[in-house]
Parts: sequence; structure tokens; C-alpha cells
Amino acid sequence: MTGGGVGAVKPTFPRRVIIENVRPEIDGGRFPIKRTIGERVEATADIFADGHDVLYAVLRHRHASDPDWKEVPMEPLVNDRWQGKFLVTAEGRHLFTLQAWTDRFQSWSRDLAKKFDAAQDVAVDILVGVQLIEATAARASGKDKGFLAARATEMRKLAAADLPQAVDRASSPELKAAMIRNADRRRATTYGRQLVVVVDREKARFSAWYEMFPRSCSGQPGRPGTLLDCAKRLDYVAEMGFDVLYLPPIHPIGRVNRKGKNNIENATPDDVGSPWAIGAGEGGHKAIHPQLGTLEDFKRLQSRATQLGLEVALDLAYQCAPDHPYVNEHKEWFRMRPDGTVQYAENPPKKYQDIYPLDFETDEIQELWEELRSVVLYWIEQGVRIFRVDNPHTKPFDFWEWLITDIKEHHPDVLFLAEAFTRPKVMYELAKLGFTQSYSYFAWRNTKWELTEYFKELTQTDVREYFRPNLWPNTPDILTDFLQQGGRPAFMIRLTLAATLGANYGIYGPAFELCENRALRPGSEEYLDSEKYQIRDWDLNSPHSLAKLIGKVNRIRQQNVALHSDWSLRFHQVDNEQIIAYSKISDDLLNIIVVVVNLDPYHVQSGWVDLPLDVFHLDPRLPYQMHDLLTDARYVWRGPHNYVELNPQLLPAHIFCIRRRVRTELGMDYFV
Amino acid sequence: MTGGGVGAVKPTFPRRVIIENVRPEIDGGRFPIKRTIGERVEATADIFADGHDVLYAVLRHRHASDPDWKEVPMEPLVNDRWQGKFLVTAEGRHLFTLQAWTDRFQSWSRDLAKKFDAAQDVAVDILVGVQLIEATAARASGKDKGFLAARATEMRKLAAADLPQAVDRASSPELKAAMIRNADRRRATTYGRQLVVVVDREKARFSAWYEMFPRSCSGQPGRPGTLLDCAKRLDYVAEMGFDVLYLPPIHPIGRVNRKGKNNIENATPDDVGSPWAIGAGEGGHKAIHPQLGTLEDFKRLQSRATQLGLEVALDLAYQCAPDHPYVNEHKEWFRMRPDGTVQYAENPPKKYQDIYPLDFETDEIQELWEELRSVVLYWIEQGVRIFRVDNPHTKPFDFWEWLITDIKEHHPDVLFLAEAFTRPKVMYELAKLGFTQSYSYFAWRNTKWELTEYFKELTQTDVREYFRPNLWPNTPDILTDFLQQGGRPAFMIRLTLAATLGANYGIYGPAFELCENRALRPGSEEYLDSEKYQIRDWDLNSPHSLAKLIGKVNRIRQQNVALHSDWSLRFHQVDNEQIIAYSKISDDLLNIIVVVVNLDPYHVQSGWVDLPLDVFHLDPRLPYQMHDLLTDARYVWRGPHNYVELNPQLLPAHIFCIRRRVRTELGMDYFV
Repeated sequence: MTGGGVGAVKPTFPRRVIIENVRPEIDGGRFPIKRTIGERVEATADIFADGHDVLYAVLRHRHASDPDWKEVPMEPLVNDRWQGKFLVTAEGRHLFTLQAWTDRFQSWSRDLAKKFDAAQDVAVDILVGVQLIEATAARASGKDKGFLAARATEMRKLAAADLPQAVDRASSPELKAAMIRNADRRRATTYGRQLVVVVDREKARFSAWYEMFPRSCSGQPGRPGTLLDCAKRLDYVAEMGFDVLYLPPIHPIGRVNRKGKNNIENATPDDVGSPWAIGAGEGGHKAIHPQLGTLEDFKRLQSRATQLGLEVALDLAYQCAPDHPYVNEHKEWFRMRPDGTVQYAENPPKKYQDIYPLDFETDEIQELWEELRSVVLYWIEQGVRIFRVDNPHTKPFDFWEWLITDIKEHHPDVLFLAEAFTRPKVMYELAKLGFTQSYSYFAWRNTKWELTEYFKELTQTDVREYFRPNLWPNTPDILTDFLQQGGRPAFMIRLTLAATLGANYGIYGPAFELCENRALRPGSEEYLDSEKYQIRDWDLNSPHSLAKLIGKVNRIRQQNVALHSDWSLRFHQVDNEQIIAYSKISDDLLNIIVVVVNLDPYHVQSGWVDLPLDVFHLDPRLPYQMHDLLTDARYVWRGPHNYVELNPQLLPAHIFCIRRRVRTELGMDYFV
Repeated sequence: MTGGGVGAVKPTFPRRVIIENVRPEIDGGRFPIKRTIGERVEATADIFADGHDVLYAVLRHRHASDPDWKEVPMEPLVNDRWQGKFLVTAEGRHLFTLQAWTDRFQSWSRDLAKKFDAAQDVAVDILVGVQLIEATAARASGKDKGFLAARATEMRKLAAADLPQAVDRASSPELKAAMIRNADRRRATTYGRQLVVVVDREKARFSAWYEMFPRSCSGQPGRPGTLLDCAKRLDYVAEMGFDVLYLPPIHPIGRVNRKGKNNIENATPDDVGSPWAIGAGEGGHKAIHPQLGTLEDFKRLQSRATQLGLEVALDLAYQCAPDHPYVNEHKEWFRMRPDGTVQYAENPPKKYQDIYPLDFETDEIQELWEELRSVVLYWIEQGVRIFRVDNPHTKPFDFWEWLITDIKEHHPDVLFLAEAFTRPKVMYELAKLGFTQSYSYFAWRNTKWELTEYFKELTQTDVREYFRPNLWPNTPDILTDFLQQGGRPAFMIRLTLAATLGANYGIYGPAFELCENRALRPGSEEYLDSEKYQIRDWDLNSPHSLAKLIGKVNRIRQQNVALHSDWSLRFHQVDNEQIIAYSKISDDLLNIIVVVVNLDPYHVQSGWVDLPLDVFHLDPRLPYQMHDLLTDARYVWRGPHNYVELNPQLLPAHIFCIRRRVRTELGMDYFV
């Protein structure tokens, strides 16, 4: 496209109305925005025309499967900015665009009133209006046609007989409504783009993930766990209130160049290998590791999960162990070295000889991409609807856009979580092109300033239109310094932050709830005795387990709609850099959650929190109750400034629900 | 266009590199940016790829008339942002776009170095590089072909014989340069838009306008001035240092419903009428008012102007008096009222029965628009190259985009100034679609806060890419309250601000230099005895005239390149709300102008000015000289904070040129 209108042509009808600067619109409409069912799209635009005519603007929208547009009138805000809203009510792709026109009738009506008020003779002006009404009647049909024709005739008579009465008839609301319904849109401006909204089910916006290695689920030291063991452990996971169970790859694990415990090079025959070294003699991405069980077992796991309100998410890791069947069957999908060997993964000078990356620039791109899609379709057929995608930033953007768009066109309920820990623009690009949720930098944002800046970017800028962060305090690859150093308080702090800053969050357990904080070596984020390379036997009954606290937090999330979305997030002033305070509010303003966290895992911290009472619609003259949903304690606060004190050893956070005072009886205040 | 990639197709080559968020780019490339000859375009973009390959990016540009792209390599800044620059050197339309690709050779070269430094065996890696070089040699031609083939052969031998030597050969700059010259661009990403730069001659960016009514130029009370009288007065205008002489419409003036002195309804036969009521028996927009003279006289005026460095600008007011020939010959170009009369202009309840607006929505749009274009072409043929366009915001945007684009395609030296005093988005739209310069809100921005905010918007945001403000402290329609109340000091204040805040500025004279400040009535911005409706005899020799000061200011503008552009404008802190301070710097940093203005026309004001010595590359330990170009006074300042005091009755402004200290001799500091 060449911009700037060289060779601009004389239109048959000149365009009077300009529609510009439409929001939300990502990169000039190149990418969709995201919503979940029941959410609102609030569109704004600059809409203006030459001259002084009255404008009329509509927001047009439809589900992609519905040929007919629905229309919502837009309202002017200030400075030629207009706004319209609609709800999305079905999964899939929804479209919207805008249309606006100069409304000659309303312009005439406005001017008529001014002239009449200035005591001018408006007989001819009334006739101008009659002509407009007649022309509209000629175009209209049904009831409007008759009504308009009759009104025109009546006004023509009154123009000669009773001008005040004619002016009165001209300004009737029924006439205005009929004229708007039958407006002449031949010269209307339609915005040049149809903008897309990808509508997902609610879990895209609100979910609590639990990552667990099935092979560590046997509960018996020495015996590798199976999918059926994993199914038995679901009660434990469900009790903690999670709703997504994410399993690392469950496929056969390569034997060639297998890595041993703690990632050492020469594995012993006993070593179980990394689940991300996918593929062996038993099969590849569509097979299940024989030690884990059968497809039948997998289905039993899924069905038990469903009973408990859990959904099983699989890992999509497009890479191969050297003994993956693809390597023999499709050498052309890999890059070869001049010595005839297959190019292994590397991050020089590091070599990963147990992993062969697929060559996405192969000449056999058609076959490769089809095969990779067939992996997703296979697991969809087995009932899987959530995929956590491993390292998507090392495969071409075009591949993901094609794959996700294609899959979601037929299965709009499928969700993809991008595990891309890389540069910000790459992470955002993956979200733009289709990933439903994305891992974020949350794990490394520890100070109040870092958290505030990062979450303002995620929730208050255009980023929120396409990037849904999923907050993980830990993963099998990430044991942050903060968790390594801060002990149990650090885990409680990061849990509270993740679960309340993020409507989507997850933990890698049982390492998390058991506060596993031993690193491979100082300065490394790798776990010592990482489950990536060995089976771990976890003591789920440890008295130090955070399982109960996690269960409490997840139930608070479920019961408070304010925590089901990130867009209302607002940070509040505290006069102590170690205490962060923020709130989320439900759309109807009835549910207000205020979270206060001591970010220091070592010391008791206290300070004064400032709350914006006007935003919360609280009367500054009346007391209000802060109900701590974690402890059930209730504090009565007054005015905007109130004191908090948090001991990290006991509980480093408040999750308050604000309760309004409803009445005073016998000197007692009552709150709801 | 439908966004969001439904039906995204599998490409033959996946696109590896993303180019996004390109700047400058107006509304997704819909509108051009503007430059003048010799100016720079600095383009930036987010450029990134999947994975970890090294990228190479180029900025491609060409004049629209040149089929071949020129290429400039881009440089990475931070956070995946890249930058490239080029100069525009010819009038007309210039195009630019971007291209980027993953550079397999440079990626290989980087990784090879890492492996070699880690003492790994790189024999096979060298062969990978040899393959890349051979493939490139096969594609290359001329000298590069031979060089690359030879280098490949050499490296292949060294891989077996002398690895350190092979690595050394691999990293040679000549090899890198040859590989970049012959890069494989088959998988390159080319940015999807060709962005347009409209390049004007310098006067589009830097001009000083003087508006004058020729009929007031006779110098003899009672005798209407002619174009030849006007030509005689050009010495006076040139002496003040202006370079554009703008004449209100010079066409025959309608007699039907002519307005009398001070805009009263019933004109006497002596009344001369408003030049904007265009057209009468003697002709319309292509005719010259007989009382002003002939086309021959107009050409003499132009030729005298040229001798004096002045260019004549005409008014383009597309509207008709009731006796304009168009009204009889083309009734279809006007809107008719039901009583068979032509619709006159109105702004209810006000009526302008001496003006008939053209109906831009007429069915005869083709004929009307062609005729309007022929008016411009006619005056272009008479040598006119600057048009001040009256009220463009009351005609369709499409019309202007078509007209200006078409005219400039054949006459790229033609400049259009938009006289649209209306809502901000409408003013910006007119600039976007093609107007070279625009009247602004300057006349009504009086306080330091108003001036600072407005000029930051005009010079530090994307607005500057398309909107070139032309600052007028007064016009025949605008005698601001500030000028009405503030006396001679107010005129000096507004002159200094206009001439230094704006590289483009203008005054309506002699009303301005003679400090004419009598309004039609209190609360009105209309002049009493306005020249719009009557001839005025001005006393150019008044001792109170500001002509000398204006001449001084214009010469300062001419001699200081810092004042030839608005983009370097920067405001500086002063601890007094009545004093504003700002600077402009030339691109080479050699010319630094600091302007300090007392905005209070009534009182002496003083304060401390803060200057950013680092920005000016001044050593904070050394004194520097502030040379006031208005008075030739020289002040030695030290450090960032210095005292100023300005008496508005004498001179309310400093226009300082900063002179650096070059040496000290015999205890004396010398500055240049």
C-alpha cells in the first residue's frame, strides 16, 4: 500500500466525515484484540466533518459467523472523540467497525430552533425541512413511510398557517427517531477496517494453574509415578483450589545423549531423562511414555480431573531427541552439519546434544507444518483444550499465527499459553499473533517500583488488549533468587502477589508449596535435584507446607469477582517502600478487594496506606470495614489514611474486602 | 481490509523478521510527512526475529520520480528499536520503506568466535561457514564472486590444517562486507508500506508574511489604492524584512447585498465592499478588480516584489457574491431554497446574504471541482506560487486532498496556507491531507502555561511531522483582547513571540506596526473601521510605528539559522510566571538563540532563568556571553541560573545569541 493519496481521485460523492484514531486497534488493525465471553468492547474514535453539520455515528459489530451487523449508536465525548460499547457473547472471532454521516435533518432542526428563538421568519426554513422529510419518506418503508409523509404534509400546511405549531411538529422526538432510522447513508463514511476481537471462554482470563510431574506422583520412593498415580493426587490439587493441571511432556523420552541427574552429560541407565527430550523408539509427540501408562490411563486422568473441576493442559514442545522417529523418517526437517550429522541445539558455547531443533526454514515446510498441526489436532481429539507452548520464540512468528488461527477457527475453545521468556517485543508479538496467555517477567519483579511499573504497563496500556499475563512465581526452570533467599515468607509473598495481581497465575508444585529453595549452585536459577532430570518424592504432609494457605487464596479468588480480571488494577500510595498496596474492583463496583503485601521477607514492616475513597464510592465521613479474607479479621477504617503492620513470618499480606457501613443501631455500626 | 489474519496461509518461506511501529508514520501511512529540501528523515522501527540470529536492516528511500531505491544501513538502538537517516534533496514526493533479514553469516561468525574462545573444536563449524560463503559466491557477480570463492577454498583448506588461521580468515572485515553486499534477501521482510515524504522548498518551513490591502496603498486620502500603488509600497515592506506579501482577494467585489462600513447591512453607493464577497459583472475568481488595475499591473507588482525578495501570495476564497458570474451560469453549483432563491451563507441566527457558498455536494461535482482547480492553475500561470486558503474547513476534506495533491504533482513549489480557525482535529486533518502551512491558535495563547503546552504539542509530538504552524498575532478578523488592552508593549510582546516561536509567522499591517487596537465594540475581536469594509489611510511615519523593531527582528531571524526551524524549541524554567524563556539551536549546535519575554505588558518583571548548559555544550565552570541581538548589549553569565529584568515600555524581550568564551588574554575573556 502506498500512503498519502498520490493520484487521489475525485469521488462521485465527497466524503464529509472522517473517522480516525480508532481504539482499541492493534498496529493499524493488523492484530485482533482479545476478550472473553461476556466482556465489553468499548470503542472510541475521532469523528468529525467539515463545516458545522450535526453528525451521527454508529458502532457496527457481528460475530464472524453472522452475516448481519448489529448497530449501536455512538456518543460524543469531548474534542470530537466518540464512544460506543458492545458485549461479546460467543466464542470465536467477532468483528467491529464504525460508520458516521452528516445528519442534514438534525442540522436543519438545530438551526431552525435558533432562528425561531431569534424571532426570524422561518416559513421557508420549514419548507426546507419538509423537503428533507419527503425525501426520507420516499426512501422509507412500512410504518415510517406513512408517518413521515403525513408529517411532511402537515408541516407544509402549518408553514403557511401556524409557524409556532410547525416548529413544534418539526422538533418532535418521534420525527427525529424516524428520520434517524431512515437516514440517508449514501454519503456515510465507513471506517476502512473491520477490526477483530478474538473471544475466548472465561478460563482465558481467569485461571489458576498447577504444574506437576506425573512421574513424581507414586508416593513410593523408588517407584516411578504413572498417570493413574497422578489421577489419585488430583484430590490434593483440587483441595488447593486450582482449575488447570499442567503436565510437562508425557511422551517417550530420548535415550541418545540423555542427560543425567542435575543435567550432567553422561546419564546412567537408571536416569529417567528430561521430558522435554521428546521421542524415542516408542514414538514421538503423539505417543505416551510407556512408564506413564496408556492413552486409556490418560483419559481416566482427564475424567477424574473433570470431576474435580480441573482441566488438564499439555505441553507443546516442538523439538526432538536424537532418537525421535522424525529424525529417521524426515531428515529433511532438520539442519545437517557438513560432517553428515544432525545439527543439535546450541547456545554457544553451550551445546544441547540431546535435543535436535526442527528446521522451520526447511524446503519441506508444507509437510513439516502440517505434521506439527496434526500433533495439536491429535491431542484435541483426546479431549485436551489447553496447551502450554514451550519456547515459541525460537520458531517463526508466521508458523504460530498460522497454527493458532487455524486451530481456533475450528476449536475456538482451545487456549495456548506462550512460554517465551525473552525480549519484551518478541513476547508481545507472540501474544498479538494469537497466544491466549503469556508467561511474564513477574518472577523477577520484586520491588514495589518494579511491580508497579510493570503491572501498569500490562494493565493500563494497549498491551492489555492482546497480552494476558499468567504469573508464575516459580517454574521447573526458575527458582528465583528471592525464593532461594527469603525462606517460607518469600513463598507466601510471591503467592499472594501472583494470585491477586494476576487473574491468571500458576505455581510449579509440590516444589512451591513445600518451599523448595535449594539451587543447583549459587547464582543459578536451576533447582538442585531438579525434577526435569530425576524423580522426586515430595513430603506433601510437611507441617511447613503452604497447601492450606494456597487453598484459602484460591477460594478467595473464586468468591471475589474483582479478582477475575486485571483491568481494574490500581496501585495505592504507602509511605513505606517495602509495603505495596493495590486494589481491584468489579464492574458493578460491589466487590472491592484491597491487597497489602509486605515485600520484605525478613522484617515486620508498617506504614500508612492511602485509599481513593471517591473511586470506591465511600463516604469520607463514615467508617468502613476492611475484612481480611485470609484471617477473617475485621478492621474499621476511617478516611483515606490508615495504618497497617505485617509480620512476614506469620502472614506477609492482607487481602481485604471493603465492607460498607449500612446502618448504626444502638451505637453499633453494621457493614456489608 | 480485514485484520487479524483469519485464513492466515502457510507461506512458502516463513517470515523471520518483524518490522513494526515505524516512525514517523501518520495514521498507519495514510498521510505523508513533510520536509523541506535539505532536511533529514530519521526513521525508527521495532525490528526483531524469532531465535537468536543476527539481524541486518536497511532504510530504503527514493524520490517518487526515481525508480531505484537508495539504501542506508540501520543501527540498533535499545530494546529492538532500530534507526536510519537520510536527507531529502528535491521537491516533490519522496518514498521510504524498510527491509530486514536474519543474517546467517554474521550469526555463524558470532557463534564461531564464542566456540573458539571456549577452546572447542570448530573444524566442522568452519565448514558450515564455508558452505555459506560458497552459496553466496554462487549468487554474487563481478569481483565479489571471485573473492568469495577464493576465500571459501582457502578456509576449507585451513579447516584441516590450521584452525586458528581459519577462524582469523573467517572474521575478516572484507569477508563480512562482501557477505553483506551479497546477502540472501529471499526471506527478507519488507515493510508493508511505502511511506511518503512531501518535500517543499525552504519557504514552507521558514517565512515571514505581511498582509496588506492594496486598496489602502494610495497614500492619498480619498483615492483608492491600486496594484501599482501597492508596488510602490513594497520598499516599505521589504525594509521590514518580510519575504511574503499576502494580498486579500483582488477580484471584482459583489454589489448585491454589499455590506457597508463596519459590516452594516445597507451599503451606500460609496462603500467599497468586502474583498471576500467575490465576483460581480466584471468577473469572478480569475478576474482583477478594475479599480485595482489590470493583469499587467499585477505582473508589475510581482516583478517589483521579486526584485525586493518578496513573493506575492494570493487569497483562495471559494465563495461567491450573489452577482458572481457562476450564480447565473451554474445555478446547479449552489443550493436552492424552496422559494426559488439561492441559499446564502448562515451561522444561525446570523445571515450572510452577501455570500453564496458553493454546494460541494452538488450532483455536478466533476464540473465544479474542475472549475475550482482551474482558478488555481490560472494564477499559477500568472506566476503565483503561494495561496492563503480562506476557511478550508467548510469544504470537504476530499476536495482539498484531491486539489492540493493534483496541483503539487505538477507544481511541487506551490504552497498552501490553511486559514482554518476551528476545532483542533479538523485543523490537523487539513494539514495531514496536504496544506503546507496552517494558521494556529497562537493569537489566543497568552500565558506562559498556554504557550508552553501548545508549542510542546506543535513541536515535540507527531503533529510536527505534518502541521507547520504559521503564527499571526493579528489578522483583519482577529484583534485579540491582549492587543486591545495592552497597548504598544502588547504588540512588541506578540511580535517577538510570533517571530521566534514560529519559523513561519506573519502580521496584518500596517494595522499591526501602527498598533491599531480599536475594536468594533467591547468583547468583539473585529476592528473598528475594519479594512475589510473600507479603505484606510495609514500614517506610516508615525513615531509610534514598530516598523524599525520589526525590521530588526526579521533580520535577526534571517541571520540566525536556529530560528529557521521549530523542532529544536525548548522551554526553560523561570521563577516568574510572567516571564517566558525558550531556546532554539541549529543542527550543528553552532547557533544558539535564547529568547526571554516579559508577558506582562504593564509592569517591569524580573526573575532567574535556568539554562541547560549541558544541552548547549557550555562548560559550567566558564563564563559565557549573552549577546542581545535586539539592543546589541552583551551580558556575561555564569552557571545555569541568571537574572533578567524586562521593562515592557522600553523593550519587553531579549533575543540572545549565546557566545562561547574562546580565550582569556590579559585578564579579559573573549567570546565568539
